[in-house]
Amino acid sequence: YSTLANSKNINEKKPCKRFVLYYHDILFNGTNASNATSAATTNDTKLGNFKHGKLVIFDDPMTKDNHLLSPPLARAQGFYFYDMKTTYNAWFSYTLIFNSSEHKGTINIMGADMMDEETRDLSVVGGTGDFFMTRGICTFRTDAFEGAAYFRVQMDIKLYECY
Amino acid sequence: YSTLANSKNINEKKPCKRFVLYYHDILFNGTNASNATSAATTNDTKLGNFKHGKLVIFDDPMTKDNHLLSPPLARAQGFYFYDMKTTYNAWFSYTLIFNSSEHKGTINIMGADMMDEETRDLSVVGGTGDFFMTRGICTFRTDAFEGAAYFRVQMDIKLYECY
Amino acid sequence: YSTLANSKNINEKKPCKRFVLYYHDILFNGTNASNATSAATTNDTKLGNFKHGKLVIFDDPMTKDNHLLSPPLARAQGFYFYDMKTTYNAWFSYTLIFNSSEHKGTINIMGADMMDEETRDLSVVGGTGDFFMTRGICTFRTDAFEGAAYFRVQMDIKLYECY
Repeated sequence: YSTLANSKNINEKKPCKRFVLYYHDILFNGTNASNATSAATTNDTKLGNFKHGKLVIFDDPMTKDNHLLSPPLARAQGFYFYDMKTTYNAWFSYTLIFNSSEHKGTINIMGADMMDEETRDLSVVGGTGDFFMTRGICTFRTDAFEGAAYFRVQMDIKLYECY
Repeated sequence: YSTLANSKNINEKKPCKRFVLYYHDILFNGTNASNATSAATTNDTKLGNFKHGKLVIFDDPMTKDNHLLSPPLARAQGFYFYDMKTTYNAWFSYTLIFNSSEHKGTINIMGADMMDEETRDLSVVGGTGDFFMTRGICTFRTDAFEGAAYFRVQMDIKLYECY
Repeated sequence: YSTLANSKNINEKKPCKRFVLYYHDILFNGTNASNATSAATTNDTKLGNFKHGKLVIFDDPMTKDNHLLSPPLARAQGFYFYDMKTTYNAWFSYTLIFNSSEHKGTINIMGADMMDEETRDLSVVGGTGDFFMTRGICTFRTDAFEGAAYFRVQMDIKLYECY
């Protein structure tokens, strides 16, 4: 047993790789299939008035700036659901898929999205390809929220293990 | 390539941080919204008689002892579902959210809950804030099971990577 | 801060442990309960024509060769769902459960299954028991696809952190 081994020399302020991307989510309403990037596969459970239990499955574009129509640098594929009865609060698990000349590979992310906070940290739990075996933090910041129709989140991805 | 690099000096008996908490789950039955902390967002699939396919989304209190009304030290937000046709067996993925003077941050956990076993180990796959980049094991032990209405699990959280 | 600390000496071609297993999924159709190993707990969302939103919960056998009836070396318990509107694409999160004389313990895996690719890499994000604290890559290769009824995936599991 070694204290050293359990406290590797990682500095929270100095990720080995970092990039900021914008996540755009357009919810399917039954008639917008050409634009929609996500859809709810369950209804609310009626526990409270904050969409508790609504589970949304998405394949969303990730862009380098906050313009929906900018060329996507990655896709975000996965799900979120609302989980509180007293406020809006979500939980995410998803994969960022890069397939460009710049990056090929995936980054896997999960964690709680406490929407009332200005920023929220989720865990980067693994990666593949150019992001082989990576770990880190993904910080969410809501950038736009237009009712049920559209929301946008800035995702600041900081990787602390790079191979 | 180095054998050393692939077998860091971690001792399963000596976590760098450890705490034991109790998880309390009160399932929404349509009329107990004031007490309920979770609700099923899908019905059973009817594959077998052990609730296969029932998916429950929760925001549950975590207490330091096994009293439901003790002050919560954290919230557990996430989901579980039943996945077997021949016995009760669940699968969990969730976040522990700490927001107290003692701890601020999150711990992300996932794994199988083989309910017939006395103890079951899940993986701590990441953390944020005070638990930045942590990994470890979360051992479940059923502490009470009162039908569909309420169950309680002791969660023994052992962290082996601390920063 | 140390570059060394952030780039441990891991060689993608030299896992510390590796094994290849076959995953068999037989979907419940309402009448095949004795053979079925999985069932859909939600319906498609109707966003596109590729089963978007269908969420399947499974307890599937893992065998060492591609014969469905070979003795299972592990169980795979978890879920997948379809997430694209323009092609078949899935997302998985699950646990491999080993309980034999050879191996006891679990391996937790998550990631995107881009079914149009010949191989797809998912992340091994943690483990317990004999696989205590492991991490790595799980490479999917479709081995058989027989409509909705049955599919089989070769899973090549490469572990790069072993304790």
